[in-house]
Amino acid sequence: MSPVHFAKRMEIVQPNAIGELLKFGADPALISFAGGYPDGSLFPTHKLNDVFQTAILERGAQSLQYTVSDGDPKLRAQLAARVSRLGTPCSLENLLILQGSQQGLDLVAKMLVDPGDIIVTESPTFLGALVAFNPCQPRYVDIPMDEHGMKTDVLEQQLKAGLRPKMLYTIPEFQNPTGVTMSAERRKHLIALASAFDFTILEDTAYRELRYNGEAPPTLKSMDQEGRVIMLGSFSKILAPGMRLGWAIGEASVIERLGLLKLAADTQCSTLNMAAASLFLERHDLDGHVEILRAAYHRKKNLMLSMIRQHFPQEVTCTDPDGGLFTWLTFPKGFDTTAFMREQALNNAKVAYVPGFSFFARDGEINHARFNFSSQTDEKIIAGISVLGALVKQQMAKQ
Amino acid sequence: MSPVHFAKRMEIVQPNAIGELLKFGADPALISFAGGYPDGSLFPTHKLNDVFQTAILERGAQSLQYTVSDGDPKLRAQLAARVSRLGTPCSLENLLILQGSQQGLDLVAKMLVDPGDIIVTESPTFLGALVAFNPCQPRYVDIPMDEHGMKTDVLEQQLKAGLRPKMLYTIPEFQNPTGVTMSAERRKHLIALASAFDFTILEDTAYRELRYNGEAPPTLKSMDQEGRVIMLGSFSKILAPGMRLGWAIGEASVIERLGLLKLAADTQCSTLNMAAASLFLERHDLDGHVEILRAAYHRKKNLMLSMIRQHFPQEVTCTDPDGGLFTWLTFPKGFDTTAFMREQALNNAKVAYVPGFSFFARDGEINHARFNFSSQTDEKIIAGISVLGALVKQQMAKQ
Repeated sequence: MSPVHFAKRMEIVQPNAIGELLKFGADPALISFAGGYPDGSLFPTHKLNDVFQTAILERGAQSLQYTVSDGDPKLRAQLAARVSRLGTPCSLENLLILQGSQQGLDLVAKMLVDPGDIIVTESPTFLGALVAFNPCQPRYVDIPMDEHGMKTDVLEQQLKAGLRPKMLYTIPEFQNPTGVTMSAERRKHLIALASAFDFTILEDTAYRELRYNGEAPPTLKSMDQEGRVIMLGSFSKILAPGMRLGWAIGEASVIERLGLLKLAADTQCSTLNMAAASLFLERHDLDGHVEILRAAYHRKKNLMLSMIRQHFPQEVTCTDPDGGLFTWLTFPKGFDTTAFMREQALNNAKVAYVPGFSFFARDGEINHARFNFSSQTDEKIIAGISVLGALVKQQMAKQ
Repeated sequence: MSPVHFAKRMEIVQPNAIGELLKFGADPALISFAGGYPDGSLFPTHKLNDVFQTAILERGAQSLQYTVSDGDPKLRAQLAARVSRLGTPCSLENLLILQGSQQGLDLVAKMLVDPGDIIVTESPTFLGALVAFNPCQPRYVDIPMDEHGMKTDVLEQQLKAGLRPKMLYTIPEFQNPTGVTMSAERRKHLIALASAFDFTILEDTAYRELRYNGEAPPTLKSMDQEGRVIMLGSFSKILAPGMRLGWAIGEASVIERLGLLKLAADTQCSTLNMAAASLFLERHDLDGHVEILRAAYHRKKNLMLSMIRQHFPQEVTCTDPDGGLFTWLTFPKGFDTTAFMREQALNNAKVAYVPGFSFFARDGEINHARFNFSSQTDEKIIAGISVLGALVKQQMAKQ
C-alpha cells in the first residue's frame, strides 16, 4: 500500500475501456476492431523518411533542440493556410500546435471548466473526451442524436428551461462513436444557441477530411462570428498518429491562454516531428495522400458493412457513415455488449470491439458497440466479422 | 473581446518569463544565456538519423501508429534497467514515459494537489515547476537553500510548528536555477521528515547525469523505503530535447494512476520518438555520449566562470556547480536584474539571461540572475560576458 495521498479529483479518474482496449490492440492473435487506428500499411514511410532525414542531418541543431511552446512558427503558418483553404479562415496567431487533438480536450477543459460547471456532450460521445474532462470535475448533460447529429431542438428546450453550460463538445463529422454527421441546419441552430445562451463550443474535427461521399457542411468555426468556437484538428488520421501532432484554432486571445497551459503541461511538442511535418507539407502532396486514404477506407467500410449485413442477425443494425473510421452497431434491447465481449467475443472469436456503454457521459445504454473498419486487412475484416456474427446469432438464439 | 469565459484557475495562469525568454532564444542577433538549452552542435545526428531511418523504413507500420499510453514497453524496460544500473533500482511497472519531465510536474500535481494544498519548494526553484503546479491552485511554502541544498533544519522547524505539505518538490542535483547539489546528509534528513510528517517527495533528476566533479550522492528515490518518492528523469539534457521524452519512476500503484492522467492528457508520447530512443539505447553508447557532454559542459562552465570573474565587478558572486547547465549570480542588494535586462542588457549588450525574480514561489529577490553556459559557443560566451560585464560595471558605478 503506497503512502501517497491522491487529490480528490482522482476519485473520478479510474481505469477505463480506452486504455484497456488499446492494450488489446497490441495482441497479435486478436482481430481488433476496437482502436481508432488508421491503416498502418498506408503510412507514407518513404516520404516520411525523406523529411526526417533532412530534419535530422541538415537541420539537426535546430530540429532536435527546444523551440517555442506554441509550436514551430513555419508549421503553424502552413497549417493555418491549409485550414483556411479547406474553408475555415484563420491565421498563424489563431493556431496552436498540440500533442494530438487529445491534448486540446485536456487543455480547453482546464482553461474553461471549474468544478461543477456543465459540459454538454452528444449522447453517445467520445470516451477520450470524457476522460480528459473528468479531472476538471464537471457535471455532464448529454443530448440525444439522430442521423443528423445532436438534436439541437432538445438542447434548446433544456436551455430555455434553465440549462447553463460552460462548454459544449461535439464531433460534427463522422462522430466517434456513431459515425454520424451534423447537418448544416443543426450547425446553424447550434451557433445561434451558443450566442443566445453564452457558451463556448469545442468542435473536434479529427475525422473531417476522411469524407467518402457527399458534400461537407461548413465547420462550426467558419460560421462563428463571435469567437465562441474552439476547433481541434489532427495529423493522426491523415498522416500518422505516432507523430502526435494536432492543433487548436480559436481567437488569438484564447489561443494565447491555451498556449500558457501548453507550456505548463509539457513545454512543447516534439521539435523534430514538427519540423518533419512542415517539410512534408512543403515537399509532398498531403491532399493526394488523403485521397488515397479516402478511397481505401471507403472500400473497407463497404466491406465491413456488407459482412455485418451478411453474418449478423437482422435485428442488429449499424450506421452507414459518409466518412471516418467507425460504424455503430445497435443490438436488441437487453443484449449486453460488454458481457458478450468479455465472455464470448474475446475467447471464442478472438475479436475485440468497444462496448457502447462507455461512450455515454451518464446512464450508458448496454446494447451498442463501436466497430473500426480502417485498421484491419480485408482478410481479417472478413474472418473477424463472420466468426463474430455466428457467435452473436448463437447468443441471440439462447435469449 | 472574446466571449469565452475562463475558469477561475486561469487567474493565476499568466504570461511568464520562461515563455518570453524561449522567444528570445529564437532571435539570432541575441546572445542568450537564458534558456536551459543543451549544445545543439553536440546532438548525435548521424546516430539519430540511423535509428529514425530504421524505425520509419523497417518498422513504420508500428512506429508511426498509436501505441499503449504508458509508452513503448521495450523502452520502459530499457530505461528501468539503465536507471537501476545507475543506482536507483526499479522495474518496468515502476516507469512511465512522459512528454519530457515537464509533463511529470503537471501530472503529479494533478494527481496529488487539491486547491489550497501546500507544496514545499526550494527557494529559489524552477519556474517551469511553478507554472505546472499553478493550475492546481496550491499554496507554496519555500525553504531557503545554502551550498548544501535545501535547509532541511528550517523545514523541520516549520513541520514541527504545524506545516503539513502535500508534496515537496526538489531538484537535488545542479539545481535549476542555482546549480547547487543537496548533500547526502540532507537527503537522509529529508526522507526521514517525509516519513514522519507524511508527505510525498517529487524528485526532479533532469540534470543528474551531467556531473563534472566529485561523487554523486544517492538519489532520494533509492533511499525511499516507503514509496513516498516520485522521481522524474529526461532524455532532454543527455540526448535531445526536441524528442520530448522523459519518465516518472514510482510505486507501481502510483505509476498506474499517473498513467491514467497521461492517457487523458495526450494519449501517449510519440511512438516514433520512443521507437528511435529504444533503438538508440540498443545500438549506440548513450553513456559514452554523456561523457562527451560532461567534458564539453565542464569546459564551458570553467570558461563562463573565468569570464565572469574577469569582467564583472567583484561584488557580483556566482555559484560554481559540479554539473548541470547553470550558474546563479548574486548582485549587490538593490540591483534589479529584471530592470537591468529590460533597459540595458537586451538593447546595449544584446545579451539575455533569466532574472532571478521569477524563480521564487513567493517574495522574489530582485538581485539574482540565472546564466546558462551549455548552449552558446566559446566565442559567444567570451563576447557576451565581457560586454555585459562592462555594462554592469557602468550601472553599478552610477548607483
